[in-house]
Amino acid sequence: MSRLEGKALVAQGGGPTHVINQSVVGVALEARKFPQVTAVYGAVHGVSGILNENFVDLTRETTHNLEQVADTPSSGLLSTRDKPDEDYCQRMFKVMQAHDIRYFFYVGGNDSSDTVRIVSEQAKAANYDLRAIHIPKTIDNDLMENDHCPGFGSAARFVTQAFMGVNLDNRALTGVYIGVVMGRHAGFLTAASAMARKYEDDGPHLVYLPERHFDTSRFLADVDRVYSKYGVCSIAVSEGISDKDGVPMITKLMGVEERDAHGNVQLSGTGALGDLLSDTIKKGLGLKRVRADTFGYLQRSFMGCRSDRDAREAREAGEKAVQFALWGDADGSVAIRRPVLDYAVDYELVPLTRVAGKTRHMPDEFINPEGNGVTEAFHSYCRPLLGTQVPEPHRFRAPTVAKILNR
Amino acid sequence: MSRLEGKALVAQGGGPTHVINQSVVGVALEARKFPQVTAVYGAVHGVSGILNENFVDLTRETTHNLEQVADTPSSGLLSTRDKPDEDYCQRMFKVMQAHDIRYFFYVGGNDSSDTVRIVSEQAKAANYDLRAIHIPKTIDNDLMENDHCPGFGSAARFVTQAFMGVNLDNRALTGVYIGVVMGRHAGFLTAASAMARKYEDDGPHLVYLPERHFDTSRFLADVDRVYSKYGVCSIAVSEGISDKDGVPMITKLMGVEERDAHGNVQLSGTGALGDLLSDTIKKGLGLKRVRADTFGYLQRSFMGCRSDRDAREAREAGEKAVQFALWGDADGSVAIRRPVLDYAVDYELVPLTRVAGKTRHMPDEFINPEGNGVTEAFHSYCRPLLGTQVPEPHRFRAPTVAKILNR
Repeated sequence: MSRLEGKALVAQGGGPTHVINQSVVGVALEARKFPQVTAVYGAVHGVSGILNENFVDLTRETTHNLEQVADTPSSGLLSTRDKPDEDYCQRMFKVMQAHDIRYFFYVGGNDSSDTVRIVSEQAKAANYDLRAIHIPKTIDNDLMENDHCPGFGSAARFVTQAFMGVNLDNRALTGVYIGVVMGRHAGFLTAASAMARKYEDDGPHLVYLPERHFDTSRFLADVDRVYSKYGVCSIAVSEGISDKDGVPMITKLMGVEERDAHGNVQLSGTGALGDLLSDTIKKGLGLKRVRADTFGYLQRSFMGCRSDRDAREAREAGEKAVQFALWGDADGSVAIRRPVLDYAVDYELVPLTRVAGKTRHMPDEFINPEGNGVTEAFHSYCRPLLGTQVPEPHRFRAPTVAKILNR
Repeated sequence: MSRLEGKALVAQGGGPTHVINQSVVGVALEARKFPQVTAVYGAVHGVSGILNENFVDLTRETTHNLEQVADTPSSGLLSTRDKPDEDYCQRMFKVMQAHDIRYFFYVGGNDSSDTVRIVSEQAKAANYDLRAIHIPKTIDNDLMENDHCPGFGSAARFVTQAFMGVNLDNRALTGVYIGVVMGRHAGFLTAASAMARKYEDDGPHLVYLPERHFDTSRFLADVDRVYSKYGVCSIAVSEGISDKDGVPMITKLMGVEERDAHGNVQLSGTGALGDLLSDTIKKGLGLKRVRADTFGYLQRSFMGCRSDRDAREAREAGEKAVQFALWGDADGSVAIRRPVLDYAVDYELVPLTRVAGKTRHMPDEFINPEGNGVTEAFHSYCRPLLGTQVPEPHRFRAPTVAKILNR
């Protein structure tokens, strides 16, 4: 049990998800149950809000409004891509000391977990008494130690529902369809497209993941084979696909790169990769109707498409973070485990170094041997994460009428 | 009252919508109530299915499955872009005669209504007794004589919910966002983005419609002004925006055009326009974080985002089509009227020539004088069409904490 008396601070880093506010609200409500927590502050725009003393007092929120914001996608406390170094952290501690902040909860992905690691280490080095906990969040689902990450289920549901619609659309007016899905290094979200398959000829017929090298001639052969068989072909492609030398296809195309503070190349917010692949098919196979959509920012913040299970787990991850800090008196990263396949979860606190800045990839057993699709094991893994009441497409089953003229 | 005895035929043309199957099911169920209708056939892939005698017998469907398909987006009977000429129609009549088809219901947009007009005229010229009815459907909302078109409300809801998410996302990690929305000649769907505005600083801050000439330097000045004021700027752009000479911006960019049988330039299925505008802002204003998404096919078939009101009206339009043909014994196009602003609808049968191949545009009173946004009149018009239980974003209202160090 932590006897540290002072304020708790919660903030959000990196890209938004549909359920990231659930974790903040989980922290805010759970922390109120501990008398040693004198107030719960939110930092605006992540760690940069700490530096600038840009705090709001969540203790003065109504529970009603907290619940409303919890149900709203994206980072309600706003976000940042800042990556603190030692100097940055020293300045954060000064602010934390001035405000008597003793509990720090940071909701984010790989980069944000690294921020918590640095803060935790710097706090120890500076002899500043602070509990620092990382709360997982990422639509990429690529945090080590986690069975899956809050935010993934809702984004996966968006991708699934998108491809359900694509299947129906592409059947009605036949052609080749490419959907470009987020996921820089990990293919989980792209793989989720496969959950859209219901009928034998449903797509996506081909799924290309960053875990496997992308080879243009193999790609063309795949598309040709599927199109010859079904008269349609729909394809899910990760924005992060790379050639055999590990060079992202998008970089090969765009020439000039845009990088953020963490050194990540800009992959989203452009339709370039989809258009490149579309041209490749038109030229390589002589097919005319080839369409590419880039799901872009819709997949992480589209209002009204979320996994209820994902939302509940994001809330719990926030609550557990507080309990680990207060009851457990420890720093670390909250990790979601799945002790039962179908389906239950549990939460553990793991050392920050095991998560910080690392990337988990799709395990081999989730990817088919050809490297252009997913396995039944992935389906079993992903299905519960989409939540309940996933919409289901239906087809007419009316019998064909015998021809009279064109017999 | 039509005493014509024979089969009814229903088919779907043009681009799918979320609720187009509702109309087919409305036809199938309503037609069963008339004893002179001996069976209800569906033509597979629109008029091309008639030519090829590719029929299914909807009379042998269960009501349960009809209802399931009614709730499924996209054209369950599949679609076509074929535009019948006189010869095409003559061949269709031969097939219709062979199968004793006396009632023809075609669900579609401008081009499909023109198909019905040709079929109706050719049937009269050929002395073939046939009732031909056009049932409106288009996410573009651009059919003459209609207050609004089935399919629009659901697509508008998608665009609204997408921009709600964009607002939240773009606030969290600030920048400029461009969302490219479908709508070749009519801006209704792009305008629907404005329904996402809740808070004063919510976007889209700028809305560019095909009804107004697009001017790059004015565009840059608009973005600059908004970005200076809010620190973010989100923009909704119609895929159909054209310069002062009426040349689509996408054509100017892409060089090579792709046209369908109706002479329409391909606008969708590529991210090129968004990327062009994104580059224009980066270069013109020196802003770094500029992102463009093209909503593409998701906006017309995304599974699970529909307007309940839209679905009910699409169903009614199908039912009314049958009633106009059978009780009214007339050819024509079903038109939706709105006798009461907030909110009721009624259906009328109007002559095909008043709808066929024509395009309705956004009326001037829906567009602001600057030509970069919509008016309150448009909000009043559009609000009920989105249906009930539209999700609503919420923000933290926690009070700011007084600074201690950086006072």
